[in-house]
Parts: sequence; C-alpha cells; structure tokens
Amino acid sequence: MTLEPDQAPVDSITLFVALLCSCIVIGHLLEKNRWFNESITALAIGFCTGIIILFTTEGKRSHILVFNEELFFIYLLPPIIFNAGFQVKKKQFFRNFMMIILFGAVGTLISFVIISVGTVQLFKKLNIGFLDIGDYLALGAIFSATDSVCTLQVLNQDETPLLYSIVFGEGVVNDATSIVLFNAIQKFDLSHITSSIFMEFIGSFLYFFITSTLLGVGVGLISAYIIKKLYIGRHSTDREVALMILMAYLSYMMAELFNLSSILTVFFCGIVMSHYTWHNVTEGSRVTTKHAFATLSFISEIFIFLYVGMDALDIEKWKVVSKSPGTSAGVSSILLALVLVERAASVFPLSFLSNLIKRSQSDKFTLKQQVIIWWAGLMRGSVSVALAYSQFTRSGQTQLRGNAIMITSTITVVLFSTVVFGLMTKPLIRLLLPSKHLSSPVSSESFDSFPSKPVTDLPLIANGQTADSEMGGDSIPRPTSLRMLLTTPAHTVHYYWRKFDDSVMRPVFGGRGFAPYVPGSPTEPLLH
Amino acid sequence: MTLEPDQAPVDSITLFVALLCSCIVIGHLLEKNRWFNESITALAIGFCTGIIILFTTEGKRSHILVFNEELFFIYLLPPIIFNAGFQVKKKQFFRNFMMIILFGAVGTLISFVIISVGTVQLFKKLNIGFLDIGDYLALGAIFSATDSVCTLQVLNQDETPLLYSIVFGEGVVNDATSIVLFNAIQKFDLSHITSSIFMEFIGSFLYFFITSTLLGVGVGLISAYIIKKLYIGRHSTDREVALMILMAYLSYMMAELFNLSSILTVFFCGIVMSHYTWHNVTEGSRVTTKHAFATLSFISEIFIFLYVGMDALDIEKWKVVSKSPGTSAGVSSILLALVLVERAASVFPLSFLSNLIKRSQSDKFTLKQQVIIWWAGLMRGSVSVALAYSQFTRSGQTQLRGNAIMITSTITVVLFSTVVFGLMTKPLIRLLLPSKHLSSPVSSESFDSFPSKPVTDLPLIANGQTADSEMGGDSIPRPTSLRMLLTTPAHTVHYYWRKFDDSVMRPVFGGRGFAPYVPGSPTEPLLH
Repeated sequence: MTLEPDQAPVDSITLFVALLCSCIVIGHLLEKNRWFNESITALAIGFCTGIIILFTTEGKRSHILVFNEELFFIYLLPPIIFNAGFQVKKKQFFRNFMMIILFGAVGTLISFVIISVGTVQLFKKLNIGFLDIGDYLALGAIFSATDSVCTLQVLNQDETPLLYSIVFGEGVVNDATSIVLFNAIQKFDLSHITSSIFMEFIGSFLYFFITSTLLGVGVGLISAYIIKKLYIGRHSTDREVALMILMAYLSYMMAELFNLSSILTVFFCGIVMSHYTWHNVTEGSRVTTKHAFATLSFISEIFIFLYVGMDALDIEKWKVVSKSPGTSAGVSSILLALVLVERAASVFPLSFLSNLIKRSQSDKFTLKQQVIIWWAGLMRGSVSVALAYSQFTRSGQTQLRGNAIMITSTITVVLFSTVVFGLMTKPLIRLLLPSKHLSSPVSSESFDSFPSKPVTDLPLIANGQTADSEMGGDSIPRPTSLRMLLTTPAHTVHYYWRKFDDSVMRPVFGGRGFAPYVPGSPTEPLLH
Repeated sequence: MTLEPDQAPVDSITLFVALLCSCIVIGHLLEKNRWFNESITALAIGFCTGIIILFTTEGKRSHILVFNEELFFIYLLPPIIFNAGFQVKKKQFFRNFMMIILFGAVGTLISFVIISVGTVQLFKKLNIGFLDIGDYLALGAIFSATDSVCTLQVLNQDETPLLYSIVFGEGVVNDATSIVLFNAIQKFDLSHITSSIFMEFIGSFLYFFITSTLLGVGVGLISAYIIKKLYIGRHSTDREVALMILMAYLSYMMAELFNLSSILTVFFCGIVMSHYTWHNVTEGSRVTTKHAFATLSFISEIFIFLYVGMDALDIEKWKVVSKSPGTSAGVSSILLALVLVERAASVFPLSFLSNLIKRSQSDKFTLKQQVIIWWAGLMRGSVSVALAYSQFTRSGQTQLRGNAIMITSTITVVLFSTVVFGLMTKPLIRLLLPSKHLSSPVSSESFDSFPSKPVTDLPLIANGQTADSEMGGDSIPRPTSLRMLLTTPAHTVHYYWRKFDDSVMRPVFGGRGFAPYVPGSPTEPLLH
C-alpha cells in the first residue's frame, strides 16, 4: 500500500521511529554510565542525525519533521503530565502541598520578575532587533519553565522521597504557572498596566488554577463512577483501559477547549484516577495502565529531546544569527546567567522561609538539599522551546533579526542547560548524598516507578495492610500521627480528608478496599 | 494553554474523544443484546452526531474531522492488524495455512473478477457518468475487501477455533490481496493488457507477498534478539514495551517506505513478536503489551466506524446524487447483489475443493459451517471506504457525477452490510451453532482475548505443561500426532518446524522456555 506522493511523510516517520528505537537501546546501554541519561542521549542522537541530514540535503534543512506547536501540546505533552499525576506518590505530594505551591507558584513568579527585569536591563547594551514589553515579559515566562522531565530521570522517588516530591510537584506547578503567565501576557494589553488590570490578571490567574483543578478532578471522578457502576461482575480489560485513556485525554482536551490550564487539569485527573479509578478495574487493567501510561510518557519525552537535538541545527535561523555571532552568544550567556541567579533567588529565600515555619528539625531543608533543589530547576526543556516558538514565530517571521536571535538563544540555553547541567547532575547528587545513592543498586528501575506494585497490591491484602505511601492507605491514624497532628496543620487537613474519603468518597467512587469485588471476576485467579 | 485559532481542531478532537467514550459505555451496556455489537453502536452514534452537526451548521457539513487516507493507513490500521497477528492462535493459523491462503488469495481473486465483470456488464444500463476500465477494476478490488474487524466481534476464538482461524486468517490475507490488487491497478497501464504485462502483474504480486512477509518476520526477530541480549538481569518494563510498540510500528512504516504490503508485514511481525519477543520480557510487560495492543486496536476500530457513520451524511456528495436517486439506489443494489453472489461463488466451490483434499471426515466443512464462512465475508468496512476515497476523490473531484455516485454507493453498501448483515450475524450463528453458543457464558470476554493467560503462564510452568494451543507449546510430539503426521503433509511441516524452532530459533531469539531467567529479576515476585 503506497500513499499519494504529495502526502508522504512516510520516510520521515520511518526515520523518526527508527531513531526512537535506537535512543531506547543506546540509552539502556549507557544507563550504568554516571554522566549520561536518556535526555542527553536523545539530544545527541538528534544532533548527529541533524548533521547527517544537513549534509545529505546539501545544507537545506536539518530536521525531518517541522516543529508543530499542535503536535507538542495536543499529542506529546498530555501523556507526560498525566503520567506524572498518575504515578506521583500522593501522600508525599499532599503532605508537602504548601511547600510545592510555595516553590512552584511563588518561586516561578520570582523567576519571572527577575528574568523580565534582567533582560530589559541587560539587552539594552546589545544590538538586538526590536523587542516590545510583551516580548520581555514572554521571555520571563519562557525561562521560568523548568524542565522537570530531565530532572526526574536523575532523582529517585524511593531514595529521596522528600526531594523528589518537592522537585517534581514544583515542576508541575511551575509548568502550569509559566504557561498561564505566558497566555495572560499574550492576551492582556500590557502597554498600560494599571492596578485594575493587575487585579484582573491576578483574578484570572486564580480562576485558571481553581477551575482547571476542578475539571480534572471531576472527569477523574466520573471515570471512577462509570467503571465502578457499569463493570461489576463482567470486567472487560480492553474497554476499561480504553475508557481510562480516553477519559484522561478528554479532560486535557476539555481544558484546552475552555481555555483552562490543561496541564493542571490532566495532572489532577491523573491523581484522581490513580486514587479511585485504578482500584475499580481488573488486575490486568491495573498492570496495563500503570505501564502503558509510563511507556507513552517515556516515548513522548524521547521524541521531544530527539526533536530539539535536530532543531538545534536549523540552518535558516542560524544564517540570520551568524551575521552577529557575538550578540547571539551574549544573549545566550545573559539568559543562562539569569537562570542561575533567579533560581538561587527563589530557592534559597523560600527554603529559609519554609524552614522558619517548620517546627520539626528533621523536616527542615539542609544546605545540601537546597543546593539540589536549586540545581534541579536549572534545566530548561521542551516547554521553553514550545513557548519560544509560539511567541517568536508568529506569522512565520523567524527571519526577523530579533525573533531569530531569541529562538536560537532559547535552543542554545536548552541544549547547554540540558547537556552541561544535566551531565553534572548525577555526579553532583552522588557527591551531596553519597550514602543513600551508593546503598541502593535499583537505580536501573528509575523509569519503572512501580516495579513490584501490582504484585504486592493484591485485592486480599489491599485494605490498608501494605505499608506503602499512598494517601488514605490506612483508615485509622497510627499512634504516632496523633503527635504530628498537633504540631502541623497540614496533617489535620490530611486527617479530615481521610475521614471524608473513607466515609463519602470511596463508597461512591471506589478505591482501595472499596473496589467492587465479585467472585468469579477476572481478578480472582491471581489470588491462587 | 490555548492554541492559535487558525490551527484549532480542539473542539473536533474533544467531541470525537467524547463520542468514543460514549461508544464504549453504550457498547458495553448493549453487549447482552443479541442484535447489537460495537460496530453498529459506533455507526449509529456517528450517524446521530452527523444529523446533529448537520442541523447546527445549517446543512453545511456532517463530520467533524475530514477523512484522511493518511490518518487511516498510517495511524488507525497498523494497531488493528498488528494486534490481529499478535493475538492469533498460531497453531490453528498455521495448521489451516493452506486453507487460509486458498480462501484469502484465490477467493479474493474470484471476487475481484466477478465484481469487475459484473459491474462492467450491469452498469451499462444505468446512466452513470464516465468510468474507465481502471475504475471498474478498482471497484472489483474495493468490494473484494471484506471487513474482518466486524466479524471478529461475533465469532469467538475459544468456541469455534476452526471457523475463527479460517475467517480471521482469510480476512487478513484478503485485506492484503485486495490492497495489493488495488495498488497494482493504480500503477499498471491497464488499457492494453498483454500476456507479458499479466505475467509481470503476477510476479509483482508474489514479490509483494514474500518480501512483505520476510520484512515482518525480520523486524520481529530483531526485536526478540535485542530484548533477549540487552535486558538480561536488568529488565525495565517501560523500555521493553516502548521498544515493542516502536519496532512493530517500524515494520509497518518500513513496508510503506519500500512499497510493500504493510498489512502483511505488520501481521507477521505480530506473530513473530508473540512467539519470541513476548516471552523475553518481564511479566509486567507481557500483561501490558497483551492488553495495550488490544486496547489500541479496539479504539482504532471504534474510531473508524464512528467516522463512517458521520460521513454517511456528507451533504456535498448526496447533493450530486440526489438529482438521480434511482441511479444511486440501482448502483448500490447491484453492488450488494454482486457481493452476495461473489462470496457464494468463492466460498462454496473452494470449500468443496478443500473437502476433497482432506482425508479426515471431522476436518471437512459442513454446509452450516460453509454458510457461516459465506456470511462472515459479506460485510464491507473501513478498507473499502479508504480505497474508494483513494480512487474516486483524486484531485478532489467528488462533485463529478460518476465519482460522487461511486462514493455514496460505497458508503451505502458499507452501512447496509454492516448494519443489516451485522445485525443478523449473532442470531444466525446461534441458529446454526446452537449448542456451543448456549453452553458458554463467557462471551462477554470476547474482546478480552487472553483473560487469564498472563496468570497461568508463569515462568515456572511455562515450558510445555500448560495445555494451550500455541505453536510450539510442547517440544515433543504427543503420541496421537504420530498418526496425524502420516495422514497430512501439513503436520509434517509443522513437526520439522518445531524441531528447527527448538534447536535453532529459540536458543537464539528466546521464546517460551528459552527466555532468559535471572534470579532477582522483576518476574520473580510473581512466583511467590
């Protein structure tokens, strides 16, 4: 079967799929290496392929698929963020909720202000084309978006649960915050900022946050309810899995449709689905969804890094820039320096602040941990690239001097931070947290977040006897938590939430211990 | 995050995903109904949505996504066919291999000739626009493609293994044959058919078949080898699953790239992957791939039927046709009648022929079975629609009278055969095979092809003690097979294949009993 020649991206897709395969294999081979990770491998392979394509097409182009904002936001980002919500350890996430909001929202706003003000001040001396105030604010939003994906490949959820949940949760809230900021900048008329416009800005920001979260929670609960009500006694694994995938995607697309933050929506949909829906399906569906979502997310991540590696060689943009290499290098250096500064300016003061609030000495961040949090937010990735394309390629004007410099600088910052900072992350963590890292040889399972979860999580022992760290895992607070209850208000909230969850939510929506169990259902044979 | 308004199919995608969800839920609710199946539900929902869209857009359009040959052949068809190969019972398939080729290839050629000659003869009396000889031959290929997808929802692999494997295998070979025929027709200059062109045609046909099969087998074996060699001792479920999905897709795209029959390629890739690769991965990957592939296939099928239901109301084509409703009805009736006749003309003589060859009485087809095989090939589906679009919308000329009539007639035949013949299939099978169907209440699992397979298929008991029907399940032929060995040559081939498989193939590529087993690997906890 051949396609019409005019619509034949067949060779591109074939090459891209082959490259994805080789990334996985090479990434696996390099896994034991202390410097490399999957992102850097994909970037390197993409870069090398770009060089080859550049030579074979005689310098005409370096990438095989044209970058498409739609491709990124409609197909590649949803599985990554959904899987993040689906696999996150909910207890840790909610226990550190205030801290995550502090770092993710307040920290991002600090970064945004520092980068915007910094670029306005520092770019004056360089001879760049015209940039208006909206462009500077957009730069602030673009470079506030950290690349949580890359970091997660290095930090381990089981070894450093506190750091992981902070860095990870922060990354998600950070993504959402910077994208909401970016949209607000593109929408509002920023030439005359008055206090009423500023209040409106804050108001729409909060509105985005709350409605997006509620939409995600709502769709997740509906999926749990449907599967619980309909499938009693006659489970069909494929239908369940299909329904979970489609409902998750539906939440994302509905958020897009209503102009909400689809990242927040699908993230909370993932959390709700793993807390309720996941417990209502068959054993086969549980294993399948767990791994299928992780796999989709994994493929999307590699896809993005591979693309960025190829795009780094896009000849058209470099042609414009090559006339003034000094300016471009200057812009990139300024941006990298600002990233280093803004991250420090948000992490260290906020850590100090959060240490002041905390009473227990063990909960406070040590300087080493603060350095790791600082470092983990230095990398810039796919979200930055996507936003930069959105801001600086409007009406296809990458040949415009200012726009071309901004895009090549963004790619330079992304490449440099991912490769240089990324390469140094593993050694740095080994240096700062030596004992924990050396004692555990399971780091090869870092992609496989729940390696033995579906096995230990059999229905018979599922009602609270397993000591894992999911929210609401046990319905009665343990003796030790009584003391903690008095010390921190977060635990009180958690306690009442548990009571509410056990008495109202789980009887309606299912969940651990409340999943419909029917003799003869396909879950039974696993009990032996 | 909002997209640019000019590239916003967000509302369409949202609506489509919501419709897919409702198809799954409604399909599940109607499952116990003896008349309905998932295809008909999807068609009906698509049709109703089409009516609503027609009213809301004031008669301008009825579908929300423009039909795209690329979408169908690049994204929707591969998962369906790959999953078919992956889930097929290999022993049955290879035991009936000659019969499948007979029905699938020879039967399709008979159908092709009858429909081409029939349309040339019968369309003369109707006042249709100009159709050249290529169009008539294309019609032959278009209406030779049976819709195996729809049939499989009705026949059950466990209840009627022989019929299932024949109908199913025939369906795959039939798809491949008709698509190869169709391509050959579009490529060759058919105005002057000489014997040398005819021989060339036959030659390229065989070349397609053999190279496509070899490519699929090759890619499957490479995937098995890579996973066996690389992953010993440190399995990573997500990487394995990602690699299997990507390699399967790669085989399909490579076949597209080399102008081979990608359907055959990906089908054999599926068979090889389930025979070798699947046994080399972790328990989690096995469950995941089994269900994930089935789910992807399931979603693609519903997607196609939903689309066809919507497209049935495309107003532009009906406008052209509505000027001569009699002609259009005549064309559709002639095509339906030809479908009924050609299927009878290929099934009954070929069954008679195959009964002549068979020595064992129990292997021969009874008349009832022949009727079921005949009936199972009456439905026309997505492949016919895709081919018809490809032939009759070249340079976008659906407004041309002849082309418009052909497309609306194709849709009419697909709708009529799927709905009317489809609705009658369940009752018909109940009538013809009453005992078997009533004795098994597991028909709700028909989508869930391997419901308890991953459970019984633990590594410890995997080397031949389970009595399932996969090829090469046991390495020593049972006493009874010695007698069978003497009676039919197919069994001799099977015997030598087994010897070869055990001594050469499986030690190299893994497979049941030869999968690398390492203590402490993630498969271990399942053994308790």
